[in-house]
Amino acid sequence: MTRTIAQQAELALLLEVATTPKPGNVDRHRDHDDLRFEHFLAGAVGASEGLEDLADPDGPPIGTAFERAVEGMNGQSGGNTQFGGLLLLAPLVRAAALGKVTPERATAVAEGTGVEDAAGFYRAFEHVDVAVADPPDDMDALDVRRGSDAVPDIRERNLSLFDILARSADHDGIAREWTNGFARTFDAAERLVNRDGPLLDRAAAVFLDLLAAEPDTFVAINHGAETAEDVRERAEAARDGDTDPETLAEELLAEGINPGTTADILAGGLFVALERGTEV
Amino acid sequence: MTRTIAQQAELALLLEVATTPKPGNVDRHRDHDDLRFEHFLAGAVGASEGLEDLADPDGPPIGTAFERAVEGMNGQSGGNTQFGGLLLLAPLVRAAALGKVTPERATAVAEGTGVEDAAGFYRAFEHVDVAVADPPDDMDALDVRRGSDAVPDIRERNLSLFDILARSADHDGIAREWTNGFARTFDAAERLVNRDGPLLDRAAAVFLDLLAAEPDTFVAINHGAETAEDVRERAEAARDGDTDPETLAEELLAEGINPGTTADILAGGLFVALERGTEV
Repeated sequence: MTRTIAQQAELALLLEVATTPKPGNVDRHRDHDDLRFEHFLAGAVGASEGLEDLADPDGPPIGTAFERAVEGMNGQSGGNTQFGGLLLLAPLVRAAALGKVTPERATAVAEGTGVEDAAGFYRAFEHVDVAVADPPDDMDALDVRRGSDAVPDIRERNLSLFDILARSADHDGIAREWTNGFARTFDAAERLVNRDGPLLDRAAAVFLDLLAAEPDTFVAINHGAETAEDVRERAEAARDGDTDPETLAEELLAEGINPGTTADILAGGLFVALERGTEV
Repeated sequence: MTRTIAQQAELALLLEVATTPKPGNVDRHRDHDDLRFEHFLAGAVGASEGLEDLADPDGPPIGTAFERAVEGMNGQSGGNTQFGGLLLLAPLVRAAALGKVTPERATAVAEGTGVEDAAGFYRAFEHVDVAVADPPDDMDALDVRRGSDAVPDIRERNLSLFDILARSADHDGIAREWTNGFARTFDAAERLVNRDGPLLDRAAAVFLDLLAAEPDTFVAINHGAETAEDVRERAEAARDGDTDPETLAEELLAEGINPGTTADILAGGLFVALERGTEV
């Protein structure tokens, strides 16, 4: 008995939220005031039908399946739990359904998206509040906060989901994964596979590796680039053993700083690691 | 967007394991040496296809669907995670698929099982090691540890799954639920619905209520009736505020005492509460 691809993706979301410490994020031992662990459990379960559409090689466009996953994810009262994680998983899951999940195949899926995928992506914003950056001045028409109101403009310009995300790659870490061969996701998977010990402990170490390596773009959007760089440096100190990761987790929780993009990349890495045979 | 019945059942299993403190059991804050939190996450996800069969009113016999759920649950390295929980959920999920989940409808499903359900139940023991009591002397042929070897004897005697479980109702708390109108399960659901606060906190309180009310039969099977009664009394003291539930959780973990049947009943109660509209 092996898990289906959709089950692997759902499990990756569950393992991600259970990973502790994961400084600044909801984890097995920490809740935010209004966003709690159980909201993530319900979010992952609710996303499962959208994940099944993604895992169907003959399924709907991945943007359409992504919208379904987000809609299902939102069947809990906590708000946005796994929007970014699902956006990263979308091309990875479809790639796994088409063959072994590799950077090349995931990139081909990402580059193969069309205007229907873009429309699904915009509609997904209707289901849940997501913190996003302001669009450049000349791109107000493409502001994701317009939701489905933007779809006619998307269609007129015939933009694919890949096109849309490419325009955000400089300030959004998930968009960057889509456009740079999912480099950090596959690097995280490699690290997860190569470490020893219980999977959740490995995942905690990899989260710290990721957060120490690059400023989290979700922190940058919410608190500015300077804070994001400060968090990166503190993660580096924790990774290097100069400070205790548990202390950093308490600090970031108290400061209300949530490196959510890094958690999303961990979820993607967990999915790839599971697909490569990592046992739970 | 609402969750499907199968998703509600899977979520109930996830909420159960996340509930803390849940003295003696794996919970959000505690692992056993070889049975860890992530094994329960993978168990719940792996069970989902069997749960979908249970949630299909025209699906296979519930014993067959139960076997599929157990097989899927076992796709992790921790061993038995949710065998009892799935055995309790089986008639509840099918009842929900046939109409509103009530004691009457769940009992009708239980009493309506046949020899095929019994065969599936026995085959399920092939997938995972489950701690069970010795059968009475005259019932060696029906020892569940024989797995599918017992199926010809089951068929010859034309025993239903309900018949089989009725013979264990005196020493197995899940079998007792099947044969007494799922009394404790629906009582737990009622308590979950009526309490205030975050759902996992309500679930922790209800777990203590359940453990204080009756000796856990899984503890009795593994450690004897005296220990089970001792645990019940200690749970009563914790419920009444005379001792700290967190302390009891640490003690039972150290003593290797695992009131697993009580956790299974909580999972059933969570499913019923979710089906009655409890929000996450």
